[in-house]
Amino acid sequence: MTLSSPRALPRQAVIREVGPRDGLQSIAAVLPTAEKLEWIREAYETGQREIEVGSFVPPRLMPQLADTAQVLEFAKTLPGLKASVLVPNLKGAERAIAAEADLMLVPLSASHAHSLANLRKSPDEVVAEIGRIRAARDASGSRTLLEVGISTAFGCTIQGRVEPAEVLRLVKAVLDAGADRVGLADTVGYADPATVRQLFELILPVAGDKLNCGHFHDTRGLGLANVYAALELGITRFDACLGGIGGCPHAPGASGNVATEDLAYMLASMGMATGQDFEKLLALRGKLARWLEGQTLHGTLWRAGLPRTMCDLKQGVPS
Amino acid sequence: MTLSSPRALPRQAVIREVGPRDGLQSIAAVLPTAEKLEWIREAYETGQREIEVGSFVPPRLMPQLADTAQVLEFAKTLPGLKASVLVPNLKGAERAIAAEADLMLVPLSASHAHSLANLRKSPDEVVAEIGRIRAARDASGSRTLLEVGISTAFGCTIQGRVEPAEVLRLVKAVLDAGADRVGLADTVGYADPATVRQLFELILPVAGDKLNCGHFHDTRGLGLANVYAALELGITRFDACLGGIGGCPHAPGASGNVATEDLAYMLASMGMATGQDFEKLLALRGKLARWLEGQTLHGTLWRAGLPRTMCDLKQGVPS
Repeated sequence: MTLSSPRALPRQAVIREVGPRDGLQSIAAVLPTAEKLEWIREAYETGQREIEVGSFVPPRLMPQLADTAQVLEFAKTLPGLKASVLVPNLKGAERAIAAEADLMLVPLSASHAHSLANLRKSPDEVVAEIGRIRAARDASGSRTLLEVGISTAFGCTIQGRVEPAEVLRLVKAVLDAGADRVGLADTVGYADPATVRQLFELILPVAGDKLNCGHFHDTRGLGLANVYAALELGITRFDACLGGIGGCPHAPGASGNVATEDLAYMLASMGMATGQDFEKLLALRGKLARWLEGQTLHGTLWRAGLPRTMCDLKQGVPS
Repeated sequence: MTLSSPRALPRQAVIREVGPRDGLQSIAAVLPTAEKLEWIREAYETGQREIEVGSFVPPRLMPQLADTAQVLEFAKTLPGLKASVLVPNLKGAERAIAAEADLMLVPLSASHAHSLANLRKSPDEVVAEIGRIRAARDASGSRTLLEVGISTAFGCTIQGRVEPAEVLRLVKAVLDAGADRVGLADTVGYADPATVRQLFELILPVAGDKLNCGHFHDTRGLGLANVYAALELGITRFDACLGGIGGCPHAPGASGNVATEDLAYMLASMGMATGQDFEKLLALRGKLARWLEGQTLHGTLWRAGLPRTMCDLKQGVPS
């Protein structure tokens, strides 16, 4: 594989905390609403300015997220916080638009098998739904951003290999259908830095700045390496879960998303501003561990602490 | 930071298993010699062709490695296996030469404070000792390679910051003193992919192909990201410990080196031949976990398994 010349590393990066959605949906226990609000308020106080707060799916399918409307309403009271919500279809999108979410995230599985199993729709049916969501958004005069997360973009536990050409075709299709942004998601931890580079290099010429999110699960320990490979291509926005929660409800102990605190540490160590206060972030992780007692949390910074060279680092910028 | 253009990713990489030395020396329990021999034989059967088998230090300082001569003697019976041994000084080097080790590794702390605390010598006193070791090697007609591992190259828990210019000065000095090879070691998990790139880019023009080893501890979860950053610069040889053992005897549960099995997975996933059989490697990890019962092992592949796209991968080359 020949590597093209990467740009300079970005000077800033955004971490979207997706724990209250992607993390909690994979955990059988239901976190009470009061604790979700405390999580979001304290994440905001650590400096977090993007949070995925829940999902507008039928509560019977995902009781953990049944209070999404209430959580979103609270998130909107925090000045400058961009609140994302996942919506699987037009019906969910209508709720997100009515609730004035800052961003609605529509997942689209690049794996046909996963798409059928997860959403009971083919990828192209989801593309059509995205077109309807865009039309509904525009008709309502809403300012809710429409982001599409291309899940299983690096492979699928059901289907196995997912062709990069198919991911490219779907990205073109969702942009044509009116998505404001797209992200590439390694839902099941199949990506490695080389495939991250290859896929982002394939998609960037088509999507340009509209491709601005990397979502990497740390299932096989490559989450942060994958983030670095994407950073080298100028990607500056990443999903993460505090304590690396998420994983899979059928695989006890399996890692979920990259851990917010470890990602924030890597970025800060490389001189990138993220605005996070590490002391508060690690305190919040401790609180989450207590709330989710019995669940396996992940990550390393909570144990190792900041290196001596960064101990006066408070706001995500090394001294 | 402006990134220079990286080369193509290498097609092959070498993992040196350093668990029997770097891993075990950080664990209070003493692994019996018979189990060390079984570890080395089975690591060889997984496809491992470089192993650091022990350390020629006084047994009273490191009882875990008191059987190094016996372990090295066994390792030398395995055809094609390159057996490394750590030597802290000329006395240790004389033992390595007499025992016909394939390679002797001399650690040199770039941190003056760490060097004095660890070896009771300044870095320049170690450089002088390396000159004496080279002279002794040449005088004996031995073919034992002399490698210097520049430890705390990315920072130090005692001293804090370590200046890249000082690392560069020491690399030049040890090459002048007759080292055949040098490696850069992040002994305490302070490196990140950006500093890995910066330091290797600084050293490569001086050391060229003689700089051929990266030794990254995974203390803060960046071990594999750091390996990837070094791979992009053409570095193709990395130290690792099965199960990520090592860490620090004073920090229970802390990660040690990057886990051999996770590193082998990342390399194989990126299409790089490492010659490792994953089934055997994970079976050996299970055995090590039993031998070291009560110790925390690390890594992710043992739990997650190979992805579906790589399940027929036996020899480190994806199908």
